[in-house]
Amino acid sequence: MLSNCGSSLSNETVRFIYAMSPKITVELLRQLRQAMKNSKYITEPIQAYIVPSGDAHQSEYIAPCDRRREFICGFNGSAGTAIVTEQHAALWTDGRYFLQASQQMDNNWTLMKMGLKETPSQEDWLISVLPENSKVGVDPWIIAADQWKNMSKALSNAGHSLVAVKDNLIDAIWEDRPPRPSTKLITLGLKYAGLTWQDKVTALRGKMAERKISWFVVTALDEIAWLFNLRGSDIEYNPVFFAYAIIGISSIKLFVDSKRLLHPAVREHLELDSPSKSELTIQCFSYESVYTELQAVCVALAPKEKMWICDKASCALTQVIPKAHRSAIPYTPLCLAKAVKNPTEIQGMKMAHIKDAVALCELFAWLEKEIPKGKVTEISVADKAEELRSQQKDFVGLSFPTISSVGPNGAIIHYRPLPETNRTLSLNEVYLIDSGAQYLDGTTDVTRTVHFGTPSDYEKECFTYVLKGHIAVSAAVFPNGTKGHLLDSFARASLWDSGLDYLHGTGHGVGCFLNVHEGPCGISYKTFADEPLEAGMIVSDEPGYYEDGSFGIRLENVVLVIPAKTKYNYRNRGSLTFEPLTLVPIQLKMINTDLLTQKERDWVNDYHRKCRETVGAELERQARKVALDWLIQETQPIV
Amino acid sequence: MLSNCGSSLSNETVRFIYAMSPKITVELLRQLRQAMKNSKYITEPIQAYIVPSGDAHQSEYIAPCDRRREFICGFNGSAGTAIVTEQHAALWTDGRYFLQASQQMDNNWTLMKMGLKETPSQEDWLISVLPENSKVGVDPWIIAADQWKNMSKALSNAGHSLVAVKDNLIDAIWEDRPPRPSTKLITLGLKYAGLTWQDKVTALRGKMAERKISWFVVTALDEIAWLFNLRGSDIEYNPVFFAYAIIGISSIKLFVDSKRLLHPAVREHLELDSPSKSELTIQCFSYESVYTELQAVCVALAPKEKMWICDKASCALTQVIPKAHRSAIPYTPLCLAKAVKNPTEIQGMKMAHIKDAVALCELFAWLEKEIPKGKVTEISVADKAEELRSQQKDFVGLSFPTISSVGPNGAIIHYRPLPETNRTLSLNEVYLIDSGAQYLDGTTDVTRTVHFGTPSDYEKECFTYVLKGHIAVSAAVFPNGTKGHLLDSFARASLWDSGLDYLHGTGHGVGCFLNVHEGPCGISYKTFADEPLEAGMIVSDEPGYYEDGSFGIRLENVVLVIPAKTKYNYRNRGSLTFEPLTLVPIQLKMINTDLLTQKERDWVNDYHRKCRETVGAELERQARKVALDWLIQETQPIV
Repeated sequence: MLSNCGSSLSNETVRFIYAMSPKITVELLRQLRQAMKNSKYITEPIQAYIVPSGDAHQSEYIAPCDRRREFICGFNGSAGTAIVTEQHAALWTDGRYFLQASQQMDNNWTLMKMGLKETPSQEDWLISVLPENSKVGVDPWIIAADQWKNMSKALSNAGHSLVAVKDNLIDAIWEDRPPRPSTKLITLGLKYAGLTWQDKVTALRGKMAERKISWFVVTALDEIAWLFNLRGSDIEYNPVFFAYAIIGISSIKLFVDSKRLLHPAVREHLELDSPSKSELTIQCFSYESVYTELQAVCVALAPKEKMWICDKASCALTQVIPKAHRSAIPYTPLCLAKAVKNPTEIQGMKMAHIKDAVALCELFAWLEKEIPKGKVTEISVADKAEELRSQQKDFVGLSFPTISSVGPNGAIIHYRPLPETNRTLSLNEVYLIDSGAQYLDGTTDVTRTVHFGTPSDYEKECFTYVLKGHIAVSAAVFPNGTKGHLLDSFARASLWDSGLDYLHGTGHGVGCFLNVHEGPCGISYKTFADEPLEAGMIVSDEPGYYEDGSFGIRLENVVLVIPAKTKYNYRNRGSLTFEPLTLVPIQLKMINTDLLTQKERDWVNDYHRKCRETVGAELERQARKVALDWLIQETQPIV
Repeated sequence: MLSNCGSSLSNETVRFIYAMSPKITVELLRQLRQAMKNSKYITEPIQAYIVPSGDAHQSEYIAPCDRRREFICGFNGSAGTAIVTEQHAALWTDGRYFLQASQQMDNNWTLMKMGLKETPSQEDWLISVLPENSKVGVDPWIIAADQWKNMSKALSNAGHSLVAVKDNLIDAIWEDRPPRPSTKLITLGLKYAGLTWQDKVTALRGKMAERKISWFVVTALDEIAWLFNLRGSDIEYNPVFFAYAIIGISSIKLFVDSKRLLHPAVREHLELDSPSKSELTIQCFSYESVYTELQAVCVALAPKEKMWICDKASCALTQVIPKAHRSAIPYTPLCLAKAVKNPTEIQGMKMAHIKDAVALCELFAWLEKEIPKGKVTEISVADKAEELRSQQKDFVGLSFPTISSVGPNGAIIHYRPLPETNRTLSLNEVYLIDSGAQYLDGTTDVTRTVHFGTPSDYEKECFTYVLKGHIAVSAAVFPNGTKGHLLDSFARASLWDSGLDYLHGTGHGVGCFLNVHEGPCGISYKTFADEPLEAGMIVSDEPGYYEDGSFGIRLENVVLVIPAKTKYNYRNRGSLTFEPLTLVPIQLKMINTDLLTQKERDWVNDYHRKCRETVGAELERQARKVALDWLIQETQPIV
């Protein structure tokens, strides 16, 4: 599934995929504007209030209690910032969401279309509408430190000031705001995690010692889950739980709702009652006390002590650390350690993908039979796929909302079928399904594009270019130390040759029973500070092509970075390549084999042989005869 | 010729290419340390003095009078910063120059090997050696504004301060320092420039008006030369002259040695005596008065007026502009305008490359005859190449020092033959020549790698991978708006497949009778803020392979970005590709044609047909029979 950061779409491609009626916000805005002057929350009235999109951990997916921007304006897309002044209310979002935002918001709101030349930045707009010497408020917990810095600088230069409002003003007026989830924690033993949390903490301290760092404030939820070998279900699709951690060279502070630590399995896992070593003793605190506890740690710092915090952490926590002690880093050592999977995690990811392929073989076999009856819809396929996955061992849930799209809906890259948009699958249109699951042993994410009748020559041509791009990345050999963004053009070259392209990145990191999108590596034309690919990292390879109003094509495998054998070995650097973990046949009917080189034909045949052998064995073990027959039929070699 | 920014080499590859005996610096350091306490130059003593590498215009090549770092420490590589404290003297340089620097400096100097983990940054080192509350001095004219900012911040955080020392302390102790050159100016008429300087100023003002900018301080020498259609020869190989310009919406201030403006042709060209319009009247000032004149402009600024200056401009000039009025930009509109060549410039560049090819065909024909006699050396080929080029119309000089290298010398990427390293060409070794010239109508830069006997299978294999990479870039089709760095991996894919690579970028922008290296576009794995490629831009395409101690291979054409015809046209974006301007045969003997695809064979044949037709016609016109025969023999189609 595409990561948000990689796509930039025009609004034409986003349609019909959300509730249509705008939210009525007159009364809410009145209440918010009152709160902006209410001394209960603030010492001096503020003239503007910023409502960012995220939660206090800068999560990509957020819990219902954190959907404050949606609450105030009605727009529920994944990206957008609302700003309310005494006179105005405006929402900034990007091209993916122009139409959706304009339909979900009432006319109290002005839509600010980001990326268009005439659209002012939030700073410029504020400066243009505010009276002199205004105060602009924001909840410092949900604005990242680097965003705060930029906004604050721009406002001060214009004579205004950005002020931290500790009580969130949306929460203050949100009467039926859901409580912060506090789901049951799952402990992952060595069988799944490969390393004990104690070993992970020790390795982390090694990295800290190397850089003379004495403390590390962990704020990303997936990093905390990975470090402690714990999972939760506080956020849909992401098996994480709300927590912070502060790791010192000889102490561990975990901030999490204390009720969650009552369960004997959790207490035992974390050795809360009988710690083996003092430096591996976890001190537990409430989730909310991270601020005061971090203050206490900072007060006791020796003059030259340094503390790591990610530059994407909240402004609130970042500013607790005095500048002289603060070392802000773009990626934390945990983010890097988590990205390079250990042998147990790799084994688990392989097993998860085999199980996932079993479910999809079943699904496609079932579709071939059912579609001619004319009753299969985008939603019913998504449901069926979930049902089939849930039959597999250690299934936990989906890893993201299934993208199930027929014909023109396939060209809407972030499509999610809803009752009002739901199309029926037929023998006449291309069908795209992008889906994945969380299993205790791994996370999956796979896209296949198929046709149940006869695809047109043009559809086949486009599909074949996408396949060539997919193979070019998957079979690429590159030196150790290469960054993923250097591979992105390989995925596009065949499309480019014919004047085609796709407007999203080619791949993202994938967690192991964790977030389906994770850093710090990826494959994208957008150059961000990605880290070099290393053996053991896992990314997606998902080029596509989208013909507005007609069809969408995407072909996605999750692939593992592995060492490559090469004829020579320049400067002993060693080389890398990819091994597909996803093992679901690529529909031969969609391929114009004349457009493939011999090397590409060999790749397809090798891949299908591996699907047949590996998934075939599991289908046999599970006695899924119909799916096995389908797999064998779909993996015939091409000549 | 490789741009410096694109290469990162280990020291193994740099040997024997410079004077070997270290410079004796005891007395110089004593004098410098006295100057650091001398109230004639500074109000309070400084505890350290930084000597950066560049000139006041951040030029890549510098004039002798600006080689201050070489003067103080002896090291004459293209990159390196010297710092002298009361007790220490240290030089920072990168892997290309470790060996050279260690041999050119005496033991008063510590070599700081940049890029190695254990090497401290300049800031960290200063902080570790300086007494508390130290003052660190630097000449604000030769440190870029962004470098000043970073250094100043780091020092203040540690209780020290960075201070601007107006009198350069190296100049103060440099007795026989050469004067700043003030060579004769060449005026370029419409025939060469395509646009009058008046039209260029008007277009620039259009860009300024678009962004509400009222002044632009031009500091890059090639931008000033391009804007005024003037050339000089103040810096070897680069036809530029020392000057500044300040362009306002209705005024033009040019800062240049007044003697240069006495020549009637220059006066007429600049309309100094009879300006046609008042807003196109050039006010002339001495080179040195830019500082006071900029101050005067700034004092008169209206409250909201903004002034452009490049963030690579000197700290001295940048800080004259009050922050509220300063708009620092990574690339100036002149840098962009200059990069997109106009039809006259394109025509000139084509003509220059045809003439250059004539000279090289002559050279190679001569070499085939002469080498067996055993008297041709790296230096004599370089001299012969210059002699042959100088016979061509409108020849001005070389565009960079010729890289002429036999066998193992070819693996030294920045090699330049010197008497003590000079090897004889033979029938047994690979020969690489990277050379180029300045003509009034254009600048050339071409690399060919050839063998005059029988190349080994391994040499041919490596050459063929490099050729495949060269073709992959040259024949690439990509959407409008694509940045050059996205094409870099195309040049490497064939080498990577076999475990090989080269440690430099693939291409750089090329000026038109200007610097052989220019921004803002390029093709490199190093992601810098490059601008998208546009039709009319001209870059080099120069992959290579270097086997330490054995041979070097590089294949370089200068290529023009042109619109591409494609089967489809996604979102009407249009596509681009390259047209080779360099038209010199690629030695067929070096190619293992079995490793080429049919498409690649077709490319070679098409290219050679074009060489034969275009250069052949010119050879015929110039009645160069021997070279014509050689060209025909070297451009036989392969099957």
